[in-house]
Amino acid sequence: MTHSQRRGHLRDRIVTAGLDAMLVSDLVNVRYLSGFTGSNAALLVFADDRTPVLATDGRYRTQAAQQAPDLEIAIERACGRHLVRRAAAAGVRRLGFESHVVTVDGFDVLAAEAGTTELVRASGTVEALREVKDAGEVALLRLACEAADAALTDLIERGGLRPGRTEREVSRELENLMLDHGAEGVSFETIVAAGPNSAIPHHRPTDAVLAAGDFVKIDFGALVAGYHSDMTRTFVLGRAADWQQEIYQLVAAAQRAGREALRAGANLQDVDAAARQVIIDAGHGERFGHGLGHGVGLQIHEAPGINATAAGTLLAGSVVTVEPGVYLPDQGGVRIEDTLVVADETSGHTPELLTRFPKELAIV
Amino acid sequence: MTHSQRRGHLRDRIVTAGLDAMLVSDLVNVRYLSGFTGSNAALLVFADDRTPVLATDGRYRTQAAQQAPDLEIAIERACGRHLVRRAAAAGVRRLGFESHVVTVDGFDVLAAEAGTTELVRASGTVEALREVKDAGEVALLRLACEAADAALTDLIERGGLRPGRTEREVSRELENLMLDHGAEGVSFETIVAAGPNSAIPHHRPTDAVLAAGDFVKIDFGALVAGYHSDMTRTFVLGRAADWQQEIYQLVAAAQRAGREALRAGANLQDVDAAARQVIIDAGHGERFGHGLGHGVGLQIHEAPGINATAAGTLLAGSVVTVEPGVYLPDQGGVRIEDTLVVADETSGHTPELLTRFPKELAIV
Repeated sequence: MTHSQRRGHLRDRIVTAGLDAMLVSDLVNVRYLSGFTGSNAALLVFADDRTPVLATDGRYRTQAAQQAPDLEIAIERACGRHLVRRAAAAGVRRLGFESHVVTVDGFDVLAAEAGTTELVRASGTVEALREVKDAGEVALLRLACEAADAALTDLIERGGLRPGRTEREVSRELENLMLDHGAEGVSFETIVAAGPNSAIPHHRPTDAVLAAGDFVKIDFGALVAGYHSDMTRTFVLGRAADWQQEIYQLVAAAQRAGREALRAGANLQDVDAAARQVIIDAGHGERFGHGLGHGVGLQIHEAPGINATAAGTLLAGSVVTVEPGVYLPDQGGVRIEDTLVVADETSGHTPELLTRFPKELAIV
Repeated sequence: MTHSQRRGHLRDRIVTAGLDAMLVSDLVNVRYLSGFTGSNAALLVFADDRTPVLATDGRYRTQAAQQAPDLEIAIERACGRHLVRRAAAAGVRRLGFESHVVTVDGFDVLAAEAGTTELVRASGTVEALREVKDAGEVALLRLACEAADAALTDLIERGGLRPGRTEREVSRELENLMLDHGAEGVSFETIVAAGPNSAIPHHRPTDAVLAAGDFVKIDFGALVAGYHSDMTRTFVLGRAADWQQEIYQLVAAAQRAGREALRAGANLQDVDAAARQVIIDAGHGERFGHGLGHGVGLQIHEAPGINATAAGTLLAGSVVTVEPGVYLPDQGGVRIEDTLVVADETSGHTPELLTRFPKELAIV
C-alpha cells in the first residue's frame, strides 16, 4: 500500500468521525502516512482531497522533499502550532488531534492558534489503521524476523553461546550478526540473561559470566526499514536439570496453546488466558507476571496488547508476539516468544510464523 | 551527588512552588531522581521527609528493589494513576505534575483519581535541576566523550576512512570501536555523510561509497551509564579543494567564536550569535539553518538550547555542545561540534573541553 493509500484510509476515518481535518503529531504515525523519517514533524490531512501538509524544521528540508515528494512541505520548527494555524486559515471547523500524544502544555500551544477551529480528540486513529499490516509491511517484518533467525543460527553454530563468555559479549556478537544479515539496527536493547539473571524478565546484559548448567534467555530483534522483529529463545548450557526441563516444557506448552488461540476474531483476553491457564494449572501462575503478547510493526510495542485486561478482538493481518514466561526468583526463568501474522478463515486460521528458529530445548 | 540529595533539591523546589508533593512521570527524570532505569515508572516525592514512592510494573520488581533500595516500591501497571491515588490518600492538597510530559488523555486519567487533590502544572522542574551537572555526572560525560575520542582515533589510525568504503561500513566500525572503548551503546544513530550527502545536516548512513575529494562528516556519540557524548568532525579524503578549505576554515572560526562565548551568565542568544555572525559575515548565513548547540546529559538533547530564540543564560556546570555548520546543497557541508562544561569566573570562564579529538582539517 502506498503512503497515499494509507492517507486515503485515514481520510475515511476523518469523515466518519465528523472531522474536517486531522493533525498527526506522533512521529511514527507521520512516518506511516508520509514516509518521512525525521525527528521533528507533524502532518495535516484534510477530509477532502486537498494536498496534505508536512511540517518539519530546516534540518530536514532536503530529506522531506525526497521522502515525501507528493506532500506540501512547510519548514517551521513548531510544527503542530504551524499546522493548526494552517488548518484555521483553511477554514477547518473541526480538527482532530492526537490527545494520547499531545501533552497538556502542547495542547495550550495548539489551542492558542486555533481561533474558531475546534480541537477534537482523535486518539488512536492512526494506530488503529496500523494494527492491520499491509503486504509491504508484512514483507518487511518477515525480513526483520529472518535477519534475527539467521543471526541466532550463526551465533549457535559458531559456538558463541558457551561457558566463560559474558552476557555482554554474547549480546554484542548477536547484534553484529543481525547487522551482517541486513538489519539496519536492533529493535531494542538485546536481553541476554544467564543463570539466576534469567529469572529477571527484562534483564540488561552485564559482565556476568555464563556457566555450565545455566539457563540463557535471549530476547532480541532486528530492525529493517523501520520494522521490528521480536523473538525470545531460552537455552541450557550443558545438561538440563529436571527443574529446568520441567519449566521449559511448561512454557513451551503454554506458548503452543497461545499460538493455537491466535485467530482473527478471537477475544484478546481469551488468547492470553489460553496460554496462561496452562501455567496456572501447573501451579506457576504467580511466576508469569506479564501479558502474553503485543503487536509489532513500526514500533516494538503497538496495538493490540494481548493480556488479561485487553479489550477487543484480534484482527486478520495484525502481527503479534506470543511470549509466555515462568520466572523462579534467584533460580532461573524461561520465556519463549514468536512473532506471527494473524490469519482469518481463508487460510484456515493458521497464523504465519515469522520467527522460525526452533523452539525445542536446545542444549548448547 | 546521591539520588537522595537530588531529591532533596527537588523538595526545595516543591516547597518553593507551594506544592505538597510532585508526581514525576518522565522516565529520564525518574532515573535521575531514583536510579531506576526500567521502561515503565513514575515517582511521587513529598514536600516533607516521607519516603518517596516509586511505582513500576511486575516485570521490574527485582530491578526496582536493587536500583532504588531507599524508596518504597509500588508494583502497579498504571503508575501515575496509582501515585495520584496514593497522594490523595496521603492528604496531599496541591500535587505538581509534569504538564510537558503528561498527555491530554493521560491527564484525564490522573484527574479521575485526584479527588480533592489539586493537580498543579510543574513543567520543567526536574529538567531545571538536571541542567547543572554534579561532579559524578561530569565524570560520566567525560568517560562518554573519551570513548568517542578513542574510537574516532582508532578508526583513522587503522585507515577506516578511505575511498571505496560505504557510509554504512564506516558507521558500523565506529560504533563497534566505541563499544570496544567501554561504551554501553551509542548516543544516537551515527551520521556518516560523504560527498554531497555531507550537505544534509542529519543524514543517515547509506550504501553510498566514499570517493577521493569527498567531505566526510561524522556526527556520533557514546553512551556511558546513561550519559551521552556528542561530537562532529568533518574530514577530506585526499586533497581539499579551495571551496572545501574555505568553508572548513569558516566553520572552524565560527566554532571557536562559539566556544569563546561560552561562559556562565552569558545570554543564550548571544552565544548563538557569536558563532552565527562569523558565518553571516562570510555571506553563508542562509547555509547555517540550525541552532548552535544544546545541553547534553541523560538525554542527547536537553536544556539549555543555544539558538536564536532561546531565553535565559548559561549556568556554570551545564554541559553543552557548540556545533555550527555550513551546508552547500548538492555540493557538501561541514559541521564541527564539541561538548564542553560551562565554567564560571573561578576557572577563568574557560570551559572544559570534553571532546578532545583535533579540529584541524584532517586530510585522510
